[in-house]
Amino acid sequence: MRIAVDVMGGDHGSAVVIDGARQALEAYPQISELHLVGQQKEIEAALQQAGCGDSRLRVAHASEVITMEDKPLDAVRRKKDCSMVRAMELVRDGKAEAVISPGNTGALVASATLKLRRLDGVERPAIACIMPAGEAGEFFLLDGGANPECKPLHLAQFAVMGSVYSREVLQHTKPRVGVLSNGTEESKGTDLTRDAAKLCAQLDLNFIGYVEGHDLFEGNVDVVVTDGFTGNIVLKSIESLGHGVLGLLKRELTATPVRKLGAWLARSAFRNIKRRMDPEGYGGAPILGLNGVVIKAHGSAKARAFMNAIRVAGETIQHKVNERIVREIAAASERLSKSTVQATAPVVA
Amino acid sequence: MRIAVDVMGGDHGSAVVIDGARQALEAYPQISELHLVGQQKEIEAALQQAGCGDSRLRVAHASEVITMEDKPLDAVRRKKDCSMVRAMELVRDGKAEAVISPGNTGALVASATLKLRRLDGVERPAIACIMPAGEAGEFFLLDGGANPECKPLHLAQFAVMGSVYSREVLQHTKPRVGVLSNGTEESKGTDLTRDAAKLCAQLDLNFIGYVEGHDLFEGNVDVVVTDGFTGNIVLKSIESLGHGVLGLLKRELTATPVRKLGAWLARSAFRNIKRRMDPEGYGGAPILGLNGVVIKAHGSAKARAFMNAIRVAGETIQHKVNERIVREIAAASERLSKSTVQATAPVVA
Repeated sequence: MRIAVDVMGGDHGSAVVIDGARQALEAYPQISELHLVGQQKEIEAALQQAGCGDSRLRVAHASEVITMEDKPLDAVRRKKDCSMVRAMELVRDGKAEAVISPGNTGALVASATLKLRRLDGVERPAIACIMPAGEAGEFFLLDGGANPECKPLHLAQFAVMGSVYSREVLQHTKPRVGVLSNGTEESKGTDLTRDAAKLCAQLDLNFIGYVEGHDLFEGNVDVVVTDGFTGNIVLKSIESLGHGVLGLLKRELTATPVRKLGAWLARSAFRNIKRRMDPEGYGGAPILGLNGVVIKAHGSAKARAFMNAIRVAGETIQHKVNERIVREIAAASERLSKSTVQATAPVVA
Repeated sequence: MRIAVDVMGGDHGSAVVIDGARQALEAYPQISELHLVGQQKEIEAALQQAGCGDSRLRVAHASEVITMEDKPLDAVRRKKDCSMVRAMELVRDGKAEAVISPGNTGALVASATLKLRRLDGVERPAIACIMPAGEAGEFFLLDGGANPECKPLHLAQFAVMGSVYSREVLQHTKPRVGVLSNGTEESKGTDLTRDAAKLCAQLDLNFIGYVEGHDLFEGNVDVVVTDGFTGNIVLKSIESLGHGVLGLLKRELTATPVRKLGAWLARSAFRNIKRRMDPEGYGGAPILGLNGVVIKAHGSAKARAFMNAIRVAGETIQHKVNERIVREIAAASERLSKSTVQATAPVVA
């Protein structure tokens, strides 16, 4: 398999991305070509310093970088020779099957949609985020922010795409799919969630109806479907609380010598918790619904996260996730076109 | 001041509510009457057992209870002699100034709206939740779930009401008010948030524009304004993560004798964290915008939370929060009616 990595645009510079790529090449012999896209001189210097001369490496020069401050669509159109767009073009031109980028999320969605186009039948691509949930395993939430305003059919398609990915890559044999709402009773929610739930109930999914915030970390649901506005706020709030609690824990546990000793004695407990709640293990968030595999790595991702993102990209290719999405989206459209519910619900259109 | 407490409908039975009431009477001499509303026999038995014979206590019998499973509006209409409605009627009839209830949230909003009516000029009452944010202090989020679907003017009014409460009761001299969105750039958000932000910018508030999930636990904002759908999901997700992490921490720290010893040595650190992140200290969530003070205590609240809820109710009365809300909502309407923005934005109506 051939994978393109945008080495620019992350918070920690290109060296950590290249280090992750090197680790991935060592761990995964299935990779036949790994394209590093960005400033050629910088990449070559980093490779030399890391002593990495793997013959599967390709360097693709790009003179520009999209920053976190750039306006997405504008930047994609203006910076023709930026690493993100160049990496996307490698996939468009059949030179790679997957792109991984730590850059500006909006620009990544925009460049992927422009260069790769949507999969047949897919109305909107969605950012799908894997959230570690401690002992409950993990849940998969989409959309994480690509589409702030959605229609019911978009949410139903997110349910289909998320279900395919959860089954094929996350190994849930019969993923439980729920629509995120402000309560589990049917009367709860908004017009959007009520109509989306009606559509989902007609599809070939393990649909469990509404789920609420309380269900997320209880292991009650595998695929959480929501609009990109709500999804983005939930994901960032959770991240914010995590940082806040972690900071408080660190300060409190190092405040006195006795506490420090206690924390040292219990250090394996903290290590286990960190491992269980660590998003780096999942590598990144796939953007589903595009002609090509696109993985958004976290802006602050380190080498290990990039290695995992490359692994996840490889698994997505191997399991033919996109072919399955096209098939299941077509089957879903077929079902909905025959249904009587749709005929009475113009909001679906 | 005269306060009515609905002692039924909480998860832990009436005894903990009555215990909280007893503690509040001891701590706050300002209370002139405390009405305990519910099953008379049960209340009298609990008072006798607690050895509480405070002359300021009144027992108001109610034969029915609204359960968590009851459909809100239906239950309020059907169960005429339930403790929640009877407590509300004490306020309506001028026998008390505040109600505290741990019961069904939907029923509490419905009974308060039906019995007390909205304050002059207020379009929608909102559940306002105080969230502890560790070292960052706390933030105040509304609406927590009373109104799943909102208009821009509703959000602007939440901003005004939240600002008054934050200033008067939470002692923030110039509370920073933000509209919750999926990013801080003006181009982000939905039609609702963009129009709400335009309205807020014209009001006499310390309005800081959009805030996102990342800002919540960073101490960047005091009053977070959002629709009840998003607010409810955010609050419950945060609570869910908190429970998940706490459970994981407990299990990991008690898994081996060495870890147990470590945790014991560092116990004061965990106590401090618990104190800082403990919602019981805030007592409950005020429902703002009603003719009367209404505090929703958590269903699983213990005695200390009820004592604090009674304290908060007292402070809300003392600071004349409702009078101030009426004045500031009127001033806001005045400003918006003169503004040119409103004339071009029919969505405000």
